[in-house]
Amino acid sequence: MCSIKKLEDIVESMSGRKSPVRLACINPVDYESLMALRQAADKRIIRPVAVGDTGEIKKKAESFGVSLEGFDFQEVGDYEEMALEATKLVHSGSADLLMKGSISTRIVMQAVLDSRFGLRGKSLFSHIALFDVAPLKRLIAVTDPAINIRPNLTQKVQIIRNAVEVLHSLGIRWPKVAILAAIEKPQVQAMPTTLDAKIIERMAGEGLLGEMEVQGPLALDDAVSKEVAKAKGIKGSVAGNADILVAPQIETGNVLYKSFIYLLGLDCANITIGGIKPIVLVGRTDTVRTKYLSIALGAATLQGAA
Amino acid sequence: MCSIKKLEDIVESMSGRKSPVRLACINPVDYESLMALRQAADKRIIRPVAVGDTGEIKKKAESFGVSLEGFDFQEVGDYEEMALEATKLVHSGSADLLMKGSISTRIVMQAVLDSRFGLRGKSLFSHIALFDVAPLKRLIAVTDPAINIRPNLTQKVQIIRNAVEVLHSLGIRWPKVAILAAIEKPQVQAMPTTLDAKIIERMAGEGLLGEMEVQGPLALDDAVSKEVAKAKGIKGSVAGNADILVAPQIETGNVLYKSFIYLLGLDCANITIGGIKPIVLVGRTDTVRTKYLSIALGAATLQGAA
Repeated sequence: MCSIKKLEDIVESMSGRKSPVRLACINPVDYESLMALRQAADKRIIRPVAVGDTGEIKKKAESFGVSLEGFDFQEVGDYEEMALEATKLVHSGSADLLMKGSISTRIVMQAVLDSRFGLRGKSLFSHIALFDVAPLKRLIAVTDPAINIRPNLTQKVQIIRNAVEVLHSLGIRWPKVAILAAIEKPQVQAMPTTLDAKIIERMAGEGLLGEMEVQGPLALDDAVSKEVAKAKGIKGSVAGNADILVAPQIETGNVLYKSFIYLLGLDCANITIGGIKPIVLVGRTDTVRTKYLSIALGAATLQGAA
Repeated sequence: MCSIKKLEDIVESMSGRKSPVRLACINPVDYESLMALRQAADKRIIRPVAVGDTGEIKKKAESFGVSLEGFDFQEVGDYEEMALEATKLVHSGSADLLMKGSISTRIVMQAVLDSRFGLRGKSLFSHIALFDVAPLKRLIAVTDPAINIRPNLTQKVQIIRNAVEVLHSLGIRWPKVAILAAIEKPQVQAMPTTLDAKIIERMAGEGLLGEMEVQGPLALDDAVSKEVAKAKGIKGSVAGNADILVAPQIETGNVLYKSFIYLLGLDCANITIGGIKPIVLVGRTDTVRTKYLSIALGAATLQGAA
């Protein structure tokens, strides 16, 4: 894949496929999920499998005026069963991508973590959100805004590896990773996460983490503003140019993610990674566009990993 | 004071005073500090006392083309002495406001915390940043992005009281306080800060915290977006309407604060409170406008507290 500059590039590069990705969506009965599936199917990014109460799904689609042409259906009754059945489809290889429709994240994760039919892989599950950051005119990823609460050093390394893998899939060969903190100087006693940041920076510097550049701790302004990095005399290739922003804990990631969406009004694609296949784990208040872009990102990550 | 809708209103309400606030600025030798002092003096918000090497200050001002008319001077040699001397002026009542010029925050705080001449008050020192949030067309405060690292429940209550006091000074009688988290449901084991949030909400609900409305835990989108609050079925008067966003720890506050400035490009006024007088503790990369607005906010808070 050519290097990606904006989210629309992902859609374009995934469109018009001879064999679209088979995506199993759990209970798509809301307008946003149905419309996003329709758009992604029309672009030949995916071939959807709607898992749930087929009658209900068809009724809802009709009421929204969304055509289900080209959809497959898997009839299942209750929520737990829908989630497990859709996960099984991916586990067995009958589908490539799992997507959350109108169902709680807790039930989806229960199925995903199922020891027999789940999607656990070699890594930790983590979430990554990718944004077209208009003021900076480039893509920036935020991780982890949603799953890991207070990751330790080892878990942070896994979260970073997961995110880097996604950017590699997009053709970004040496992603620049900023490990966020409130300051740019390590304060071992008062802010232990700054020490983690410095250790991971060293590990990456010694080539232990693969094709990525890592710098930390960095405050957000150090990571994204070339002017600030220069004014503060912060050296290093990541400062001012970060592709991936790694949060020290879930609240920081979540607030950053939500300020991008709800205050900056940015477009977003977000997926859960670390399992055997990426999961389109979108939220109930996500727009059609976010869901659509997230499907495209899931497909791109899948292809990059293949 | 009438109710304030935007930062410029603070400037207007503080302008043209018969007896401007006496502000002691430590080592104003950078363009931003000098220009902000000049603008605030021209508006008759303050009468500046420049504490430092008078010759150097005058030389720098001349090189920047900034007039020092109406400035007083206090000649002091090294950094520690400048900070202590300026703090003493406020401690003794010869000045009303302390401002950080071209000097490290560490040295300023050392003087501020001095047991004989410092500015410790009855509360905890905390930082508050006030923004004109253009997408929401109103003022929003973020606390604490800069001083308290992992505040416990008692410290969070003090941080909230400090912030509410600032908003009271601006004529906002019952500020709506959102205690931020990654989710809106308390998770006692996994995310203990959500329990703190719920307890403080209850305390405020029972009238123990004075004239404020408190709700928490709330995710950022719940706090600022009426649509999200409605879609998620979150009740309460704060959800969707927050005036004050309280961060669970410093990294979250800092990232939010910096996304407002560096990604949203918002105007900001920020001060340190909780001592006997507010402190204009601005950063080295803050613009003239931020420093100027922060001076006005310091003056307003001072008057409100009087």
